[in-house]
Amino acid sequence: MTSPEVASAHEASVDVEVRYAETDQMGVVHHRHHIVWFELARTHLCAATGTTYPEIEALGYFLMLSGVEVRYRAAVRYGEVARVTSRVVELTSRSLIFGYEIRVGERLCATGRTEHVWVRRADMKPVRIPEVLRPGFSRIAGDAAKPPLR
Amino acid sequence: MTSPEVASAHEASVDVEVRYAETDQMGVVHHRHHIVWFELARTHLCAATGTTYPEIEALGYFLMLSGVEVRYRAAVRYGEVARVTSRVVELTSRSLIFGYEIRVGERLCATGRTEHVWVRRADMKPVRIPEVLRPGFSRIAGDAAKPPLR
Amino acid sequence: MTSPEVASAHEASVDVEVRYAETDQMGVVHHRHHIVWFELARTHLCAATGTTYPEIEALGYFLMLSGVEVRYRAAVRYGEVARVTSRVVELTSRSLIFGYEIRVGERLCATGRTEHVWVRRADMKPVRIPEVLRPGFSRIAGDAAKPPLR
Amino acid sequence: MTSPEVASAHEASVDVEVRYAETDQMGVVHHRHHIVWFELARTHLCAATGTTYPEIEALGYFLMLSGVEVRYRAAVRYGEVARVTSRVVELTSRSLIFGYEIRVGERLCATGRTEHVWVRRADMKPVRIPEVLRPGFSRIAGDAAKPPLR
Repeated sequence: MTSPEVASAHEASVDVEVRYAETDQMGVVHHRHHIVWFELARTHLCAATGTTYPEIEALGYFLMLSGVEVRYRAAVRYGEVARVTSRVVELTSRSLIFGYEIRVGERLCATGRTEHVWVRRADMKPVRIPEVLRPGFSRIAGDAAKPPLR
Repeated sequence: MTSPEVASAHEASVDVEVRYAETDQMGVVHHRHHIVWFELARTHLCAATGTTYPEIEALGYFLMLSGVEVRYRAAVRYGEVARVTSRVVELTSRSLIFGYEIRVGERLCATGRTEHVWVRRADMKPVRIPEVLRPGFSRIAGDAAKPPLR
Repeated sequence: MTSPEVASAHEASVDVEVRYAETDQMGVVHHRHHIVWFELARTHLCAATGTTYPEIEALGYFLMLSGVEVRYRAAVRYGEVARVTSRVVELTSRSLIFGYEIRVGERLCATGRTEHVWVRRADMKPVRIPEVLRPGFSRIAGDAAKPPLR
Repeated sequence: MTSPEVASAHEASVDVEVRYAETDQMGVVHHRHHIVWFELARTHLCAATGTTYPEIEALGYFLMLSGVEVRYRAAVRYGEVARVTSRVVELTSRSLIFGYEIRVGERLCATGRTEHVWVRRADMKPVRIPEVLRPGFSRIAGDAAKPPLR
């Protein structure tokens, strides 16, 4: 039922070398940094739409974060490299949900999601996804795009 | 049905002066900092048990964070003071859920929750809440304490 | 030689409750946070000019940081409250140097300085201190103001 | 006068993709992050001694930071990749000074240095460089090693 086009949905992954500054006195990466790493993977995924996030801002829009959830499953430590993967979980005409995974080798360290709405930079008001960005985001969303976006 | 003791459940609030370093290029506080502010309010709430969090660590335990959720409702800006409030939402013999609110004046800026498990510092294994900490946490939890803790 | 006016130079101090998130796996506050604390004290000192830093930005200027030095003398730990003090060390028509001290009780933990230049927000070009800000900054600078500012 | 061995002093460079979370409301990377990037480059340089920094800690030592200086020359922005280079500037039996450069392409964005002393993890007391680490650090220091280390 899934068209070949739809099946080509993208994931983006980025390898993050843990920084000493990211540890806390428990001796592990402090939990706020996972959210920064999600953002880094999301930057890569946005670039896969054909428009980088700096370009989106230059067009006059923000993909403003409205919610975040993280489940921590295993510690990440200094000296390790974490692979952070992001994909679109839901795309509507006004909002976007990304899903994430953080792994060190085979070890699953965290999963999470972030919710976003499009806002116009000039007045910070919510808007529909700008027409120019729609094809690229629909493409990376694949099955996750709700009609009429898919 | 609620005993007077149970009704004495605590909340802890802390006023946070927004730091320039906490803003991002959207001109608002970056979303990771809300989680750090939650932690600050939680530190105050733990102190209300009669045992500060540094004392808990000195006893050989961590209240390890296993999950976080935040809903962002309005931006917080440099030059503002945010009031961060924390309370216990659920207390079992092995886990703890805290709820939070961030307000600037009357404006509700964010709500959230964090989930925690007790772990023994020596081997990072999950354990029951240490006996010595039980009365204090039961007291601040009030109705949120599940039997047999309440 | 010093006029009474000049002698009224201000210092600004702010008490910072150490955040768990500010520790690293050495078990002490990571050194980058001292610089954020300096900024917080500087915000208070700017307010003492009669114009808050958000107001300075609204006027169309930045006090852009061009250099920083910190000497770390003793560790600061979670559970402690650090007092951060800032004062003007040198004020010229185009630049400003602030000095800082961080203490926990009597213990001197760090000293430092930051150098700044005035820039116009519109084009990020260096400019002279805006006339409207001159009296306030001269006043907090006291002896540290170089002629013709003093 | 310089032996061929000495001439083989190392530099370590690391490419850092700017994170959105590293920007502030001036629209540029906030100055505290340069210090975190220095640390990342220093981690790579330590690895070039043959002993990684996590291994140094496991041996029971810290290379504790006692001072930092940064000169900011040009802004770094989200969407850019910064190359951070680190080398040893001075090595004595008890202390170590590293120098750094941050560039985006040809543009020099910042230079800096950090000073460190060896401390024993058990009691945080200053010590001489552990014998086992001496050859590796002397090698990466090259001419920067003071006798008798060179």
